[in-house]
Amino acid sequence: MDEMDRVTVIAPVNIAVIKYWGKRDEKLILPINDSVSVTLDTSIMCAKTSVCFGPEFTENEIWLNGVKTSFSNPRLVNVLDKIKNIAATQRSVDNAVLSWKVRVCSENNFPTAAGLASSAAGYACLVTALAKLYKIKTDVSVLARIGSGSACRSVFGGFVRWHAGVNADGSDSIATQIADSTHWPEMKALILVVSDIKKHTSSTVGMMNSVNTSDLLKYRAKYTVPRRTEEISEAILKKDFAKFAELTMKDSNQFHAVCLDTYPPCVYMTDVSHKIVEIIHAYNDMCGELKVAYTFDAGPNACLYLLDKEVPTLLKLIKYLFPTSNLDFVIGLGDVDGGDCKFLNSFPIQPQAKDIIKYVIHTKVGKGPEFVTSHLLDKKGNPLNVK
Amino acid sequence: MDEMDRVTVIAPVNIAVIKYWGKRDEKLILPINDSVSVTLDTSIMCAKTSVCFGPEFTENEIWLNGVKTSFSNPRLVNVLDKIKNIAATQRSVDNAVLSWKVRVCSENNFPTAAGLASSAAGYACLVTALAKLYKIKTDVSVLARIGSGSACRSVFGGFVRWHAGVNADGSDSIATQIADSTHWPEMKALILVVSDIKKHTSSTVGMMNSVNTSDLLKYRAKYTVPRRTEEISEAILKKDFAKFAELTMKDSNQFHAVCLDTYPPCVYMTDVSHKIVEIIHAYNDMCGELKVAYTFDAGPNACLYLLDKEVPTLLKLIKYLFPTSNLDFVIGLGDVDGGDCKFLNSFPIQPQAKDIIKYVIHTKVGKGPEFVTSHLLDKKGNPLNVK
Repeated sequence: MDEMDRVTVIAPVNIAVIKYWGKRDEKLILPINDSVSVTLDTSIMCAKTSVCFGPEFTENEIWLNGVKTSFSNPRLVNVLDKIKNIAATQRSVDNAVLSWKVRVCSENNFPTAAGLASSAAGYACLVTALAKLYKIKTDVSVLARIGSGSACRSVFGGFVRWHAGVNADGSDSIATQIADSTHWPEMKALILVVSDIKKHTSSTVGMMNSVNTSDLLKYRAKYTVPRRTEEISEAILKKDFAKFAELTMKDSNQFHAVCLDTYPPCVYMTDVSHKIVEIIHAYNDMCGELKVAYTFDAGPNACLYLLDKEVPTLLKLIKYLFPTSNLDFVIGLGDVDGGDCKFLNSFPIQPQAKDIIKYVIHTKVGKGPEFVTSHLLDKKGNPLNVK
Repeated sequence: MDEMDRVTVIAPVNIAVIKYWGKRDEKLILPINDSVSVTLDTSIMCAKTSVCFGPEFTENEIWLNGVKTSFSNPRLVNVLDKIKNIAATQRSVDNAVLSWKVRVCSENNFPTAAGLASSAAGYACLVTALAKLYKIKTDVSVLARIGSGSACRSVFGGFVRWHAGVNADGSDSIATQIADSTHWPEMKALILVVSDIKKHTSSTVGMMNSVNTSDLLKYRAKYTVPRRTEEISEAILKKDFAKFAELTMKDSNQFHAVCLDTYPPCVYMTDVSHKIVEIIHAYNDMCGELKVAYTFDAGPNACLYLLDKEVPTLLKLIKYLFPTSNLDFVIGLGDVDGGDCKFLNSFPIQPQAKDIIKYVIHTKVGKGPEFVTSHLLDKKGNPLNVK
């Protein structure tokens, strides 16, 4: 057998600063408001996906993190169907090829259990890889969106906006880049992974309940988010960190407010999350200006955005307030020495119990998906790292 | 010296089911929306206040829970001034009497530390007592409101509505009774006092921040609350518990949502509070109908409303899920035997850590303020129980 076409892609995670919460169309995954995110460096966190197809495969197969998984997930099926339809329309591959079955092998280089929106990176990989395999020319953000809404923002690096769009078919619900990864290289992120045993409402169920029951979500989507989206895009282009930070924190708070206004309420932040919020406000107050911003997704972990000059001091503060027994507490770009620590003794919040933060991922703004040659499927299309 | 005029009043606490959050006038304490509350029985929880005046007193003096306190609190001064002004206008007492100094002695029969809106009961007592002392005829709810907004709802028993009003002078921001304490005698309340060491933002500061920073509060005050106020008044009059419960829970959630949408956010509910929410939803789901409602004020304690037939089973559930070392765990109306316990083993939530709930106050709907003859000031106007 000849070596088959294999396409392998790595793609980044993104963390929203203006949040997506609520769909106007469940099937097409069309949101009720625009959102804005920061794409994080793939060298620290990424998903990697290999795809191939061939006449000898008898069924579509998928392996996730080394475990064979059912291909019957409707979103996965939707994505593949959509891509094949485009390929048929564009006549980008022979008709025979359209009948071939595909193999997909995907893994994350970070623990899925960390609750870090792994599906966004995963679907961004998948659609980028499949679009190349089927040689189609299309807006891949639309394809990623069909897989997992916020995945559409992972098809670009830097700072990205997902436009809600108005068309019923979703054709204008696409992602665009506000600025690329070189625009604001000082921007760093610290992800505080909180020890957590709670089972959370899935974001799909949570946002459906919010759309159905929260009065406040309607107001948010119609009035607050459109204004904030414009303001934060401008803050990003001007590199106005204080404005960026204020909008990021306010929008995280409002997203969780809407979750609480849902019936029954969805609660994603814990006492520890709220303690982090209190710490960041106290730190900014002490600095007399906004130096750090927090944002929380549908889970208790905090993502802090800050400029690189602030990183050493903030890491000192975190290590002081969240004592740890983890010898590898700051991962990714790692710990950075040299922070000012004179203020620690007078900081208004006392150190917390040990190990309530598991570890900190130190990362930065990064690029969008990239093609790589280190495949996860061998030349015959078999997965290489099966558990 | 002759025996002096002493007036002593006991007054109830009230717990809102449609919440007051946000003032349109800080000095007159005029709210941005109507609110609705249930008045709780004074035999379980009450404030008691004695007042007197005399030409021999050289200054206004006040004792709170046995401790002499400064009379300079502007709200206290406002209330006394307002009452004296009315007395002057109505010529209800001699002019000389208006120059006399007053003595006030007040205590709660429940721990202030429980975070149970003691100021509402306290000001309802004070203004009822002073209005009688000065022989004025007026709407005492207006006087109570000037002392502590929600105190105006404690001047009536049963179910009470505080009308936001529209007049700039606050003359139409009064409380009215929706139904008296005999209307729905089956209605009971269980107050779960949560162990808590956190210092919360005072509600005065919190609501000012919310008015200044929360977009969602504006929407809530303008659209959501007016509708809910009408609906819950109707549910109370019809004794429609399911509707009452749904509105109560939704409004508690929305109040805390608005607090979270505030910048910086005010967080009053803890992980334990949210666990109670989860338990009540699980219980209602299991029952197939709304049997219990939760509501949370500006602190972590839960107030559960339920009908008396549900009390034994719910107490069993609470004791099962919140194991205690407190031998006197259920106070007030006390524990009630006979609850169904077959469901406990299949209940979807596991027992929590010991002693995270300090105790439960079992109480019921009660009457408004009453005059009593067991004074806290002796015949010479000296406090009887000074610490």
